[in-house]
Amino acid sequence: MSRKGQIDGIALASGGLDSSTVLAIAVSEGHRPLPLTFSYGQKHSIEIESARAVARSLDLPEPLVLSLPFGEIGGSALLGDGAIPEEPALGATSREGIPSTYVPARNLVFLSVAVATAESRGVRDIWIGVNALDFSGYPDCRPEFLDAFFKAAERGTREGSTSSEPWWRLRAPLVELTKAEIIQRGTELGLDHSLTISCYDPDPAGRACGRCDSCGLRRRGFEEAQVADPTFYRQ
Amino acid sequence: MSRKGQIDGIALASGGLDSSTVLAIAVSEGHRPLPLTFSYGQKHSIEIESARAVARSLDLPEPLVLSLPFGEIGGSALLGDGAIPEEPALGATSREGIPSTYVPARNLVFLSVAVATAESRGVRDIWIGVNALDFSGYPDCRPEFLDAFFKAAERGTREGSTSSEPWWRLRAPLVELTKAEIIQRGTELGLDHSLTISCYDPDPAGRACGRCDSCGLRRRGFEEAQVADPTFYRQ
Repeated sequence: MSRKGQIDGIALASGGLDSSTVLAIAVSEGHRPLPLTFSYGQKHSIEIESARAVARSLDLPEPLVLSLPFGEIGGSALLGDGAIPEEPALGATSREGIPSTYVPARNLVFLSVAVATAESRGVRDIWIGVNALDFSGYPDCRPEFLDAFFKAAERGTREGSTSSEPWWRLRAPLVELTKAEIIQRGTELGLDHSLTISCYDPDPAGRACGRCDSCGLRRRGFEEAQVADPTFYRQ
Repeated sequence: MSRKGQIDGIALASGGLDSSTVLAIAVSEGHRPLPLTFSYGQKHSIEIESARAVARSLDLPEPLVLSLPFGEIGGSALLGDGAIPEEPALGATSREGIPSTYVPARNLVFLSVAVATAESRGVRDIWIGVNALDFSGYPDCRPEFLDAFFKAAERGTREGSTSSEPWWRLRAPLVELTKAEIIQRGTELGLDHSLTISCYDPDPAGRACGRCDSCGLRRRGFEEAQVADPTFYRQ
């Protein structure tokens, strides 16, 4: 971790467009969150390198990279090395519009670890890049989940349970933005979008597949934002 | 994992008295939870061997042992290799009676990973050994935290958010028991207490120190229960 200054929060940092924009916003508001990046058996582990490059470009501390055992937990097309794992009791791979890339309880786990890290470091701001688009698909990105989660965090931590006012502060500055608006915001703040990676299936050099959902969202976002897309798509 | 039968839940299993008694109770009620054991840099990692031995003795599947990065998160006397880590923003090492062995947000993380594992396996019962004694010290063992946590889990998971009734079931059969009552209950069910380990600082052979809080609780529990204590205490 950088010794240049005290951190004042924890930011989930995946190296993608959303969390990188959150970091840029936090910095522009005078904050200095510690980027928290997870290695969890995701196919697109090159995103960890992106998270590092983005943090460096914003003069933030080196991300804290923590390993989580989602590979052994299983249950998502984002994990393992190919096929969508069997989900005997869950029925179809998509239920009521939840994408098969849903990772069971991922944000519940990510936020829990972020809270643990924040409590251990004595800071209370938790930055996360959830936004209007996520809400349509992933249950663990919805505001009602986030509210409930932070209520639990208040009760289940030393700081939260002994503080006379709410201790934890959710910082979700993208909450009402579309992908195009997120890209515009990043551009305004000078975020180098070429450092970010969105693809679920990049090649070893980090080049985007151009075919997955996430590439599609990114591509359309840049088009709609009328910002030049620096991404190299393999197709 | 054992192939002998389908699991029907997930049980947090630390190899200690409480979680081992929970396993015995679950089995006595006809359940077959998958024991979930965490390796998280705890000093007393020999407890993982205890969890395995207890599961075997109850004819349960081999515990799923998952690694969690609490060592890198820090902030508790249970972690690291000796001294209580500095907690600059937390003030004293004990606040309002919370023991220094409190691990930041540990049960928030443990339960989140248990929910992720349960969702991935298509089961909904989460067994945990919280009890009357824990409530007095650890914020993340209190019923108000557990209630809030499961509300968040309902909203933040595929099963919870698409089910027409509450999906997750908290199973906390020790919730109103003292240590002595837990020991009596285990004895009634034929649990082999000699397989369990409570000590925070066992020697390499797994022998209890006899001095830590946890050894003290265990010792007094056996005395009060008027059950012979099979534990070898170094002093």
